Amino acid sequence: MTTTPEWIMIGGDGPESYSQHSSYQRALLEAAKDKMTEAILTNLSLDLISNRFSVADFGCARGPNTFVAVQNIIDAVEEKYRRETGQNPADSIEFQVLFNDYTLNDFNTLFKTLPPGRRYYSAGVPGSFFDRVLPKESFHIGVMSHAFHFTSKIPKGIMDRDSPLYNKDMQCTGFNQAVKKAYLDQYSIDIKKLLDARAEELVPGGLMLLLGSGLRDGVKKSETRNGIVVDFIGESLSDLAKQGVTEQEKVDTFRTSNYFAEQGEIRQIIEENGKFTIEAFEDIIHPKNEFPLDPKILVISVKAFYGAFIAVHFGTKVMRKAFELVEIKAREHISRLENAKPGMQYLIVLRKN
Amino acid sequence: MTTTPEWIMIGGDGPESYSQHSSYQRALLEAAKDKMTEAILTNLSLDLISNRFSVADFGCARGPNTFVAVQNIIDAVEEKYRRETGQNPADSIEFQVLFNDYTLNDFNTLFKTLPPGRRYYSAGVPGSFFDRVLPKESFHIGVMSHAFHFTSKIPKGIMDRDSPLYNKDMQCTGFNQAVKKAYLDQYSIDIKKLLDARAEELVPGGLMLLLGSGLRDGVKKSETRNGIVVDFIGESLSDLAKQGVTEQEKVDTFRTSNYFAEQGEIRQIIEENGKFTIEAFEDIIHPKNEFPLDPKILVISVKAFYGAFIAVHFGTKVMRKAFELVEIKAREHISRLENAKPGMQYLIVLRKN
Repeated sequence: MTTTPEWIMIGGDGPESYSQHSSYQRALLEAAKDKMTEAILTNLSLDLISNRFSVADFGCARGPNTFVAVQNIIDAVEEKYRRETGQNPADSIEFQVLFNDYTLNDFNTLFKTLPPGRRYYSAGVPGSFFDRVLPKESFHIGVMSHAFHFTSKIPKGIMDRDSPLYNKDMQCTGFNQAVKKAYLDQYSIDIKKLLDARAEELVPGGLMLLLGSGLRDGVKKSETRNGIVVDFIGESLSDLAKQGVTEQEKVDTFRTSNYFAEQGEIRQIIEENGKFTIEAFEDIIHPKNEFPLDPKILVISVKAFYGAFIAVHFGTKVMRKAFELVEIKAREHISRLENAKPGMQYLIVLRKN
Repeated sequence: MTTTPEWIMIGGDGPESYSQHSSYQRALLEAAKDKMTEAILTNLSLDLISNRFSVADFGCARGPNTFVAVQNIIDAVEEKYRRETGQNPADSIEFQVLFNDYTLNDFNTLFKTLPPGRRYYSAGVPGSFFDRVLPKESFHIGVMSHAFHFTSKIPKGIMDRDSPLYNKDMQCTGFNQAVKKAYLDQYSIDIKKLLDARAEELVPGGLMLLLGSGLRDGVKKSETRNGIVVDFIGESLSDLAKQGVTEQEKVDTFRTSNYFAEQGEIRQIIEENGKFTIEAFEDIIHPKNEFPLDPKILVISVKAFYGAFIAVHFGTKVMRKAFELVEIKAREHISRLENAKPGMQYLIVLRKN
């Protein structure tokens, strides 16, 4: 079971829609922009910038964030070329952008909303980014905007009450060691497969820019503000099941395939894979700025992040009621939120060996 | 005004749907298959068949014919490689298929219906095939399945009753010399632009396989069975306007951007462009087999070809009534149909100079 395709089905532009989730990702992208530019100026070899330069976004969704991400990258490549050759990149370089996402992604909307005046050729590439989706040596820089913390599926047993791996939490925030191991094993398998695929598709010396959510070493997700809020959501949904507003079974099967790995775990997986060198591993927003503390504003932020996923599984009515309860819980536990450990939004820069 | 996007909006699988039009194209593709294979075996240089081999379909629609066309091409390339090297192509060649059509094409359906078990990487390339849509030297063989007889727009004045270029016929079948010149000029401009674009996108020595409808030299469209039937359709629609079933203005503005050029005209345009060598220019079905003579069967065939276009412009009710009248006219003029001059369905094989 994969969860990403759920995103695709979330339509509309309302306050609980995909677009709002999308605006959260947009803010992360804005925050990461300078670091991405710096990574390209520093790590991209000038030799790679020739006639054709291809940028690929893996997990592009239906836009519009992908357009921001790939334009940032193209701007940085042009800047590097201009600085180091003194020539105008428009005279000699043709850019191509390869937009990848699941086959069920809304590519029609992506294509219809391609930015007018863009200076690149576009192609949509359907298929799971855990597998090969492009021929060998097809692109020069790849990006995953806030998509590197997904597993391809929820590990076996997690949703099964009779399994030792049964996880009572919505999103593995306070899981036991067996549950954590199951997630980490799955994440490790998936990321190694993903890196193997990208290593074949990337030209030698090419870069991958990976944005995602993770954890500092030794911090549990349940100790971060994000994790605490996710627990509030899970508890609120359980409360609603007890009140008969939704079914307990629905709550039990609401598990996402996010895995917020610790920085050291991510490093280890990449190093064990061995196809890439880690050129940078950076925070992209200040650890204190993850989620606002005012319960009202916090609920709006969290709704933007999780609302659409919850609405797809439970319906809009249940989702709204759940967030009313989340706000109450946030008020009750304000000091726990205040004293939470910092989470992590990272940019990892990999260079293909 | 371009007409191709109209196709895209035609949904459903009924007897008057796009799918039926599509089945006509499918039959042409089947008829062309051996000639396409032969063209590849004869004209493709073995040097071009290396690690990555890219096939592009320009005007792919939402499938499924494009899958047949590109698979035929891949099979032929593999066959050539196998014959001439004695090696298994699967061991060393990665195929990529670039599916091109207008930005408003239904790429979502195309991607969802990609053949399971296919041995190629897929990408959708949005944009008009009259313009550049791919970086330089992006593909090795291009195909246009029954799409080479389109102009990018209807020439100015054609639908304007006050213009000397006003064309009273639905599809320029019996046009006067000024009308014919306007269409031919437009076609010539468009095809040269298309060839310029493909010449940049194709690797040196690469091939274009062009399927389309045309005319033998000296034959007018109105003298062919297809042209006669189109005239019946136009007359039937005018009859319905007179009866108040539809509006005369709608009939006046129902002009398609097909232009069935004479073989000599097409040759001349390609030669004047100068970027390609014509390696073959062949009939793909026997000239006698264009349309069946039995009026009932003929109407079913013609409906498959034109029904969906008419339904988009006039609605299904008017379209059905029009075809009832077409059948009556066909019965009345059976000897005219019998003595019609042959039309032409061609395969042109071009090699990039």
